Amino acid sequence: MATPVTDRETRILGIIEKTRAKRPKFRDERITMSHGAGGKATAALIEGLLLPAFASPALDRLGDAGELTVGTAELAMTTDSFVVRPIVFPGGSIGELAVNGTVNDLAMAGARPLALTLSLILEEGLGADVLKAEIAAIARAAEVAGVKIIAGDTKVVERGHCDQMYICTTGLGRRDPRATLSPASLRPGDAILVSGPIGEHGTAIMLARGEFELGAEIVSDTRCLWPHVDALLDVCGPELRCLRDATRGGVASVLNELARASGVAMLVREAAVPVHPAVAGAAEILGIDPMHVANEGVFVAVVQQEKAEAALAALRAMEGGEQAAHIADVRTEPPGMVLVETAFGGRRVMDQLVGDPLPRIC
Amino acid sequence: MATPVTDRETRILGIIEKTRAKRPKFRDERITMSHGAGGKATAALIEGLLLPAFASPALDRLGDAGELTVGTAELAMTTDSFVVRPIVFPGGSIGELAVNGTVNDLAMAGARPLALTLSLILEEGLGADVLKAEIAAIARAAEVAGVKIIAGDTKVVERGHCDQMYICTTGLGRRDPRATLSPASLRPGDAILVSGPIGEHGTAIMLARGEFELGAEIVSDTRCLWPHVDALLDVCGPELRCLRDATRGGVASVLNELARASGVAMLVREAAVPVHPAVAGAAEILGIDPMHVANEGVFVAVVQQEKAEAALAALRAMEGGEQAAHIADVRTEPPGMVLVETAFGGRRVMDQLVGDPLPRIC
Repeated sequence: MATPVTDRETRILGIIEKTRAKRPKFRDERITMSHGAGGKATAALIEGLLLPAFASPALDRLGDAGELTVGTAELAMTTDSFVVRPIVFPGGSIGELAVNGTVNDLAMAGARPLALTLSLILEEGLGADVLKAEIAAIARAAEVAGVKIIAGDTKVVERGHCDQMYICTTGLGRRDPRATLSPASLRPGDAILVSGPIGEHGTAIMLARGEFELGAEIVSDTRCLWPHVDALLDVCGPELRCLRDATRGGVASVLNELARASGVAMLVREAAVPVHPAVAGAAEILGIDPMHVANEGVFVAVVQQEKAEAALAALRAMEGGEQAAHIADVRTEPPGMVLVETAFGGRRVMDQLVGDPLPRIC
Repeated sequence: MATPVTDRETRILGIIEKTRAKRPKFRDERITMSHGAGGKATAALIEGLLLPAFASPALDRLGDAGELTVGTAELAMTTDSFVVRPIVFPGGSIGELAVNGTVNDLAMAGARPLALTLSLILEEGLGADVLKAEIAAIARAAEVAGVKIIAGDTKVVERGHCDQMYICTTGLGRRDPRATLSPASLRPGDAILVSGPIGEHGTAIMLARGEFELGAEIVSDTRCLWPHVDALLDVCGPELRCLRDATRGGVASVLNELARASGVAMLVREAAVPVHPAVAGAAEILGIDPMHVANEGVFVAVVQQEKAEAALAALRAMEGGEQAAHIADVRTEPPGMVLVETAFGGRRVMDQLVGDPLPRIC
């Protein structure tokens, strides 16, 4: 099931692949915005500095959540800081994002979200009304997601040392017995689905910053994804291989991470990827691929090919999943690589995000 | 066992007590540094805004950690953001503090620390060497504490929107079956201990900022306190009532919180409180009570009176516990209040910290 490519492509891919197989090194002298963008620099920071320092098997798996077992409880735990600017944007705000983002990381690990902790860093001078609105947004999102906030912390820093507020949430979940999700379980022939149209969160943030004018209103897709995962677990059972939410770095970064982690190839049909025309337009203006734009309510699911139709049907029955699509398949060659079949019949390598065209989106 | 006070004192205390019994209200229009100081404004923010919004029984207990049970696992979870300035100070640094602070909050809940998550907010332009040093400090402190870092996150914000780095750690622990710790278990006659000399962390931070000159070298007391708690659980068992680490707001704030939560009174013998002369001197220069200065390796333990001697002996055998002392006793009257017997034989109310004389100490 090798992917047919030309000789020239094979040579280029061989070089990239060789580079790819090594753990990336962290060689930079200073931290730049790209280290937080979810692309190559982030991978170098995490895999080149953090993982070797902590020597933790749970971290080394590079999943959306770490796993541990206590007594009879098979747990997953995940953490995220939210620094989005502006804190309120079309379709959501930092408080809602901070709950959904962490709940979704648990869901991606196949874990039912149980509890959250909430740590606030507030800027001196922040309006009480602004804070109250975000606390209300957090409470609402937690209720929708069915999680309790069980511990918290508040720090205040001097004016100028924070951008209104930063929020760190940590989630605890219980791993669902219906499937064991892991990139290592990917098999040639598996189907790769996306749960909805891509790039809407990143585009909504750009619009909120007034970076350009667009006729269409694009709103963030932030939402709790556990119900979607629950539905997939129901219809796919152990044939659900792996899930990843396509946040920073977009769908392209997720596909590259999975391909690299599992040593398989992926072939994406560009025409099959659902994209709102306004998102495509914005990406074109900015000169980036919508596949690199962040989502907060869209994930990539890898399922056994035979389960693809049932999985799509289950997703399409959910709010936010109506446009779920089968966008790619797992192949054997070239291992660790993601290739795209463009709308015009061509084929190119789809790489991870390099640099940071859209800082502070989550 | 009523505390003898004069008529005038009784009247004043009656008024304070009436105010005290109500849940504090959050009425401020803007966030100020005092909302992060661990004193009255922090209590108003937490009890007046956050707790009512989240309606979470685990939060309402206002312990150092939230509790939940999953399967057979009796868990505790706690979170803390660290924003200390400067990030390196005599005796420690932000990375070490971020591990010890969260591990200690689990220990105070009577929970053996198992795992941590680590979320970094980095300032654009941060030197890689500075980051590497803190990652190494985190790894060392986690190893000493015997916890694994099982999940992480990294965000980067533009230069000026953070002070080098902020760190949020969240800890998961397993509640120890030897005792159930709760302020509600305090009984008149119980002994109140401190595990070591007070105010050293806060004073070390002030010295590191060059705010004044002192001949003596004071270093932060940051350390992992689980071994001390483990030892107390061994010697006291269920007669260990309650533990609180005396971080922001100092020992005075902890005593007030416990007195208020349990509806008991406390009588502190000022002369029995261990304080390094240089800490006392620094506090005098600053015009604050060392009882309000933050610690990062000292806790308050309430034990049944009969266990006080054994508990002290156990603490004194530990590193950092050599000066553990029996500083106060639990009384019945006036409920919710902390009184101090001064070195000169007088008696006054010891209130919670008001305002924020020492911002960004942890």
